[in-house]
Amino acid sequence: MNPLAVSIGDPSGIGPEVIAGSWEARVSAGLSPFVVLGAEAPLRAVWGGPIAQVSSAAEAVAAFQHSLPVLNVGELNSVQPGQPTRAGAALAFAALEAAVALALKGEAAAMVTAPVSKSELKAVGYTWPGQTEFVAERSGVSPDDAVMMLAGPNVRTVPVTIHIPLRAVPEALTTALILQRAEVTARALRLDFGIENPRLAITGLNPHAGEDGHLGAEDQTIILPAVEELRRRGWQAEGPLPADALFAPHIRGRYDAMLCMYHDQALIPVKALDFDQGVNMTLGLPIVRTSPDHGTAFNIAGQGIARPDAMIAALKMAAQCAERRAERRAASHAQTPSRP
Amino acid sequence: MNPLAVSIGDPSGIGPEVIAGSWEARVSAGLSPFVVLGAEAPLRAVWGGPIAQVSSAAEAVAAFQHSLPVLNVGELNSVQPGQPTRAGAALAFAALEAAVALALKGEAAAMVTAPVSKSELKAVGYTWPGQTEFVAERSGVSPDDAVMMLAGPNVRTVPVTIHIPLRAVPEALTTALILQRAEVTARALRLDFGIENPRLAITGLNPHAGEDGHLGAEDQTIILPAVEELRRRGWQAEGPLPADALFAPHIRGRYDAMLCMYHDQALIPVKALDFDQGVNMTLGLPIVRTSPDHGTAFNIAGQGIARPDAMIAALKMAAQCAERRAERRAASHAQTPSRP
Repeated sequence: MNPLAVSIGDPSGIGPEVIAGSWEARVSAGLSPFVVLGAEAPLRAVWGGPIAQVSSAAEAVAAFQHSLPVLNVGELNSVQPGQPTRAGAALAFAALEAAVALALKGEAAAMVTAPVSKSELKAVGYTWPGQTEFVAERSGVSPDDAVMMLAGPNVRTVPVTIHIPLRAVPEALTTALILQRAEVTARALRLDFGIENPRLAITGLNPHAGEDGHLGAEDQTIILPAVEELRRRGWQAEGPLPADALFAPHIRGRYDAMLCMYHDQALIPVKALDFDQGVNMTLGLPIVRTSPDHGTAFNIAGQGIARPDAMIAALKMAAQCAERRAERRAASHAQTPSRP
Repeated sequence: MNPLAVSIGDPSGIGPEVIAGSWEARVSAGLSPFVVLGAEAPLRAVWGGPIAQVSSAAEAVAAFQHSLPVLNVGELNSVQPGQPTRAGAALAFAALEAAVALALKGEAAAMVTAPVSKSELKAVGYTWPGQTEFVAERSGVSPDDAVMMLAGPNVRTVPVTIHIPLRAVPEALTTALILQRAEVTARALRLDFGIENPRLAITGLNPHAGEDGHLGAEDQTIILPAVEELRRRGWQAEGPLPADALFAPHIRGRYDAMLCMYHDQALIPVKALDFDQGVNMTLGLPIVRTSPDHGTAFNIAGQGIARPDAMIAALKMAAQCAERRAERRAASHAQTPSRP
C-alpha cells in the first residue's frame, strides 16, 4: 500500500507533536507508513527524533522505518508553538492542497489532516467553512454528499445538520437531507468499514423523540418518513429514537452508526465516551480522509502534554478503510472476465 | 435518622424488583433503612425474600435489618409484571402521596420515587407533567423553583428548559430562567452536597457556543449575561461553554454541575457516562427527593434482569443529602444563643 499523506495542520498547534508521537508509536500501534506534508521546522520545534526529507510519497515507505518522512510544501523557518502566524497558516493551506492532490493521484493511499485554525486560514485566502468542504470540492464532490462522521471505539455518529444555529435546525431538517446523509453513511459503512448490512439509528429531534407528537411534530412528520424510506430501500434503520437513551451502554452497541439531527446531539456522546480516540472521517469521497477529532489546542502546544491517541486512531482508520477499498477494487477486477 | 420513604412506582414496572434488589444489597452498599410505600403483591410477584408489613415509618427501622418493610397504601392483589393496569396506576399515585406526606411530616428523612408511567397515571386523574412537579406542588414550591438535576459518578447536569419541543427552546430560554435554575442548583450543591463554593459550567445553546455570534446570537445575548450576573453574586460560574467538549474526560471534572440549555444536552452525557448509576434529584424543595434515572421498563419487568444500581444510587444520595441537612440544622441550632 502507498503511504498515507498527513497534512501538518497549523504548525503552531499540536499537529506536529501528535504526528511525531504517532511516528514514535508506529511499531506498538501497528501503523502503516505515512508521509508528512509540511516542513521540518515545526517538527523540530517540538521534537528531537529523526526526520527524513523525501521528494516523493514513494520514497517515504522505505524511510518510515527509521525516520519520520517529510515532504516540503513550503518555506517556514521559525515556529513558536502556541503562536499562530500568517506564514504558518499558509503552510497549513499548502499542506492540505498537497495531501489531497497525492490522495487523488493515488500516490497516497489516503489523507489524514492534522488540525487547522479556521480563523488563521481565512486570513490567507482559505474560503471553505472547514477541511471537509475543501476536500469535497477538490475531490469533485458536492458538499452535500460529503458527510462528516465522528467515530470512536464506542460510537459512530453523523450530524445531519452541522454548523448552523440551533434555532435554524428544525427548518433545515428535511426528510430528503436525512435520507441523503443516511445513504452516504450506510454505503460508507459497507465500503470502508466492511459492514455489509449496517444497522442505522436515527435520533429524534425533540425530547423523547417527541412523545408521539406531544413534544414536537418533526419526529413524526420529517424523521419517521426518512426511516421508512430507508427501510423500503433495504437498509436496516430504526427511529426516531430518543437521543438521550441511545448512547447508554446497553443500547449504543446495537447500532453501527447514529444519524443525529444536529451538532451537539452527535458530538456530545463521541467526545464524552471516546475523546482521546475520536476520529473525524469524511464519507462519500473518492478518497479516504480522516482527522483526529480535536483542535489546534494552541494553549497546550509545545508543552509535551498533547496525547497522540486520536491521531493514531485517525491513521489506523484511514489505513484500514484504504485497504478495504483496495481489496474491493482487486476483487471486482478479478471478477471482470478477461477478453478472449 | 428516620427511614427513607420509597414510593413503589408502577407495580408492573421494574420498580418492585429494583427496590427488592436494593434491600438485598443493604449491607454491601451501606444503605440507610427505608420503607416501601405500596403493597406486598407487586413485590411478591417478582421476589421471594422476607417482607415485613409495618404500620408506620418508625416501625420500619427495626424491621429493615431482617425484612423489607412495606407500608400498605392501597389494595392490589394481582400484578402481572410488564402489564400496567388502572389499579396499578392508582397504587402508584397513592404511594407517591403517602411518601411525600411522610417526608413533609419529617417521619421519613427523604423520599425516593420508583418509576411511574405518565400515560397510566393520567388515566387515574394524575394531572402533573411528571413526579417533580407533583412533589413541588405538595411541598408548596412553585414548579419554577423545583429544579431537576441528573447526577451520576461522572457528571451532574441541570436542564434549564426540559419537556418542550426543540423548536421552542430558543424562545423559552431567558437570562432570568438560567439565573433562577443556577441559583437553586448552586444553593443545593452547598446545602445538600456539602460543596461550599460550587463550580458551575453554563453551556452554550449553539454549536461551539455560537463562535462569537457566527453560529447564533443567544450565547452572547442571553447566556453570557446570566454567567456575568452569577459571578457578580459571588458564584463560580463559567460559560457559555461549547457543550460538545464540556463532557470530555479532562474537562468535566472541573465543574460540580453543568447547567444545560435543553433536555438532550443535559441527558445525553449523563445516560452515556452514568446510565447504571444515574439519579434524578429535585433541588429547591423543603424535602429531599431522589429517583433512579430510568423508566418503568415494562418490556423487561419481572425477568430478573433489571439492575438495582440506579435505585441504590438514588437511596444513597437521598440519605447523604438528608444527613447533611440534619447536620446543618443541628449546627445552626447549636449556634443560636440560649436565652438568659
